[in-house]
Amino acid sequence: MKHLIDCAMKREPCDLVVKNARVYNVFTGETEEAELAVAGGRIVGIGRGYAAARVYDGRGGILLPSFVDSHIHIESSFLSPEEFARLAVAHGTGTVVADPHELVNVCGVEGAEYVRTAVSRLQAEGVSPLDVKLQLPSCVPATPFETSGASLDGRETARELESPDYYGLGEMMNFPAVVAGEEDTLCKLRAAEALGKIADGHAPCASGDALNAYLCAGIRTDHESASAEECREKAARGMYVQIRCGSSTNDLEDAVKAVDGMNFRRFLLCSDDKTALELSERGHIDDALRRLVALGMDARYAVAAATLNAAECYGFKDCGALAPRFFADFVLVDDLVSFRVRAVFRRGVLVAEEGKAVFSCERYLPAAVRGTVRIAPVLADSFRIETAGLVRAMRIAPHGLVTEEVHVKVPAGVLDVKGTDLNKLAVVERHFATGNIGLGLVQGFGFHGGALGLSVAHDSHNLVILGDDDAAMARVAALLKEAGGGMALVDGGEHVFPLDIAGLMSSADAEEVVRQTGELERLARAHGVKEEYEPFMSLAFLSLAVIPALKLTDRGLFDYETFSFVPLEVKQ
Amino acid sequence: MKHLIDCAMKREPCDLVVKNARVYNVFTGETEEAELAVAGGRIVGIGRGYAAARVYDGRGGILLPSFVDSHIHIESSFLSPEEFARLAVAHGTGTVVADPHELVNVCGVEGAEYVRTAVSRLQAEGVSPLDVKLQLPSCVPATPFETSGASLDGRETARELESPDYYGLGEMMNFPAVVAGEEDTLCKLRAAEALGKIADGHAPCASGDALNAYLCAGIRTDHESASAEECREKAARGMYVQIRCGSSTNDLEDAVKAVDGMNFRRFLLCSDDKTALELSERGHIDDALRRLVALGMDARYAVAAATLNAAECYGFKDCGALAPRFFADFVLVDDLVSFRVRAVFRRGVLVAEEGKAVFSCERYLPAAVRGTVRIAPVLADSFRIETAGLVRAMRIAPHGLVTEEVHVKVPAGVLDVKGTDLNKLAVVERHFATGNIGLGLVQGFGFHGGALGLSVAHDSHNLVILGDDDAAMARVAALLKEAGGGMALVDGGEHVFPLDIAGLMSSADAEEVVRQTGELERLARAHGVKEEYEPFMSLAFLSLAVIPALKLTDRGLFDYETFSFVPLEVKQ
Repeated sequence: MKHLIDCAMKREPCDLVVKNARVYNVFTGETEEAELAVAGGRIVGIGRGYAAARVYDGRGGILLPSFVDSHIHIESSFLSPEEFARLAVAHGTGTVVADPHELVNVCGVEGAEYVRTAVSRLQAEGVSPLDVKLQLPSCVPATPFETSGASLDGRETARELESPDYYGLGEMMNFPAVVAGEEDTLCKLRAAEALGKIADGHAPCASGDALNAYLCAGIRTDHESASAEECREKAARGMYVQIRCGSSTNDLEDAVKAVDGMNFRRFLLCSDDKTALELSERGHIDDALRRLVALGMDARYAVAAATLNAAECYGFKDCGALAPRFFADFVLVDDLVSFRVRAVFRRGVLVAEEGKAVFSCERYLPAAVRGTVRIAPVLADSFRIETAGLVRAMRIAPHGLVTEEVHVKVPAGVLDVKGTDLNKLAVVERHFATGNIGLGLVQGFGFHGGALGLSVAHDSHNLVILGDDDAAMARVAALLKEAGGGMALVDGGEHVFPLDIAGLMSSADAEEVVRQTGELERLARAHGVKEEYEPFMSLAFLSLAVIPALKLTDRGLFDYETFSFVPLEVKQ
Repeated sequence: MKHLIDCAMKREPCDLVVKNARVYNVFTGETEEAELAVAGGRIVGIGRGYAAARVYDGRGGILLPSFVDSHIHIESSFLSPEEFARLAVAHGTGTVVADPHELVNVCGVEGAEYVRTAVSRLQAEGVSPLDVKLQLPSCVPATPFETSGASLDGRETARELESPDYYGLGEMMNFPAVVAGEEDTLCKLRAAEALGKIADGHAPCASGDALNAYLCAGIRTDHESASAEECREKAARGMYVQIRCGSSTNDLEDAVKAVDGMNFRRFLLCSDDKTALELSERGHIDDALRRLVALGMDARYAVAAATLNAAECYGFKDCGALAPRFFADFVLVDDLVSFRVRAVFRRGVLVAEEGKAVFSCERYLPAAVRGTVRIAPVLADSFRIETAGLVRAMRIAPHGLVTEEVHVKVPAGVLDVKGTDLNKLAVVERHFATGNIGLGLVQGFGFHGGALGLSVAHDSHNLVILGDDDAAMARVAALLKEAGGGMALVDGGEHVFPLDIAGLMSSADAEEVVRQTGELERLARAHGVKEEYEPFMSLAFLSLAVIPALKLTDRGLFDYETFSFVPLEVKQ
């Protein structure tokens, strides 16, 4: 403390001073022509005439507090935590609130331990370049209607949450159980309350009494608003609304309509799910800022959501602003329109410059996350559908996660979808080789000429396979088994990209992941997948039973409204 | 938790529902026509159609979260904590951050313990009607330049602060020691940091490097801004600026100029010092709101400062808003202009209605706070001043605490101030009967025809006596000794109001305190005290050496700029 004071009073030289930059003030929304002085990893002054061991030239840019992604599943990047960190940090991210929901659903708590250890090994001059706050997944499995690799009941969750390794409780997706006051679910939330740890939310379409009840359970955030009105109601009820800018979905336009001069302090930014491709081509929270401002949001509100608001919501002490005694975690950008990131500092140490991380990433790969795909034999016949002529099919909302249920007339008998606007969809259990296979149909996805699939299928991550050819679908399952998980496409040929970390993430470098996932996506597009869908990631959410309306698990078609299974066949 | 959820879902009846009122939403700045439903001391819903054991008719009023006074010295009300609570709660105050600085300077930590115990005995249907967060005074004594009844060094302060009885560290008034990095002072601030307890500030005129350094010590609040520009700079550096509306000073007009649509979240309200007279005649935080809005502040910003901002700054969990799961601490007012308080609820229990508290106040009076005035014999001669003809005098800033030093030509020889615009001022040591007497002069105060004085003299609370007649001044000292402290005025007759609690507060009922202090003030006005000064409270701050510019302690005249003693005589 004395050293900070002495540096602030210029009695001692600072460690670093950034000159020739404007310092953005998140409290006032103004920028100042001033030097930013750093000592002991903290900001000691914004002013003039500081002596320092190191001077960094801001070249006329603007200094912002490092960005916070308030809710992300790192797994969705397909990257190892180390590689994710390289991309995220290069785009100005300083902190992510990470819910290792996918890893834990496959590997149990060892999946979270893997992320924690991998990240803890990242170092740049003795500082950790990315602060990863781990949330303990609250829904393992997400529903009792699917087969996951692990399960954590209320008592186990309460015990695990005591560990200092967990910052809080991950998104509580079992909304019906919360508002019903279901004991095992409340046990998890009571534990968070008793420990003084934050509980994240997941409440699509929550409103009125049900929203009030959900909040009475102590849940304080949400990233599932489907309209500006929903955003505004949640903020009005004291919820922190996480504006999502993810790969499969984004709520930016609604958020721009919802945020105003009073409620802006209740909004945060998050990505939820972001592919390596998007991270490297478009960016991370910097991309969300860019797009929000382009859509008309006041840049001051957008920056507050990316910085100070998140620090206040999650109680990150001395974070989220460029002010004396705050941590020296900051980003140098060109301007508040492009938000192009030039350099990133963590605790006053340069960790990224011109789009490249400057810290090393020695890979950590424990046995717990390897060789996790186990399936019973799958044949072309496994995908055979026979019908009386009227079937349920899913239509995926463009750029969204939700589906609607449509009823489609088809010729009676054995169903052949070739040449129709239907695809077959299968979810193949892959944790215990039970042989469970759920079958369904997707309308309007556009794919033709074979099959594609992956071992990423929210939230239990069985194999999800889509196609118009049963033999190709069976071959995709076999390829995914051989690869230990991954993404595969079978047409004339066979194309596979292994996701060897729990069948969810790749141990390859980010560039390789981007290249190979990009190739597979282009190939899928060539087979007709429509522009409004992500060829692979859209499939990964068709098994997510906690999101409306019609979904498919390894046990069959699931209806969100009634929260129960429904047959493929519609009674006539 | 389950009960709250069941009530929110209307599966169970609530404890209380307030109907026919509009619910103010501090997150959106809007009011809603809705019922407020309460169960288990918390808000479970804002909506319609709740069944409840008790229905309260809001009669068309507006419901606001209870008000927070973020910084107050209860002692300045002259009231016992119990009586203070009655007045404050009746005006809508739910929480006060109280720094028992005066009591501890007189009685040591037993003075704080007295407040804690007294308040803990207040009950209304099992709830405490007023939440008093006790801050451990950080400056006992305030300066080494005066004689106080107790002292707490860095090590003692660090040890005391570990007690859960203290919410944080009280206002750090020794600004010079902080920016100088003085070890004993930093020891106190390090303790607060290590314990994760908030440290309140007191930084008049702090700016630039010195402000940065002060903030580097971990101090996060301030209530001493003398201009709009100072408010804005402090807020810009991440400080929470406490807008003061006190009896001796208020910063309302500066605050109205300083607050804007971005920085409003960094402003709080406080009273610092508020007399019983003001509390009962004008109000408390409700009065600050009324006046801020009358001066042109957006009511939404003013209410946020009185509620949510304070809860965020001090980390009061589930406080500061009317939303599900927040505590049911709320106030029913007529409107957002008059802020007239109709009813006050705490944890859903009615604690005040139509200006009257509805809870009992059995008085607690431990020996530790009684019989604390001990002085050596004082004679008329004790106030004799002999001069060569040019003397220093204080001019008090109208409606303020600061003084300016003026140099006054007077006839050489023994000084007689009768019929001049000067008054003699004396500070008589009263803790250990050392016989210390400091002498000075006040210009333009207006008093004539005797003497007046009191045993409240910030911050060491020796006797401060002002007059134009040495014999009357001596008699005032004698009367204050006999009464065990209080306020006294001697003209033809003798008028005393005892402050029998540590010489600072009265054990009488609020009404009695208001009546008697009112009478003494009217009497003092009749003796010429000018409208821009508080006859007694203005004197109480003339001994406060931590505020500019010229002050008087029991050891002599003190100059804030040089932080050292100066003679009464000016060299010619």
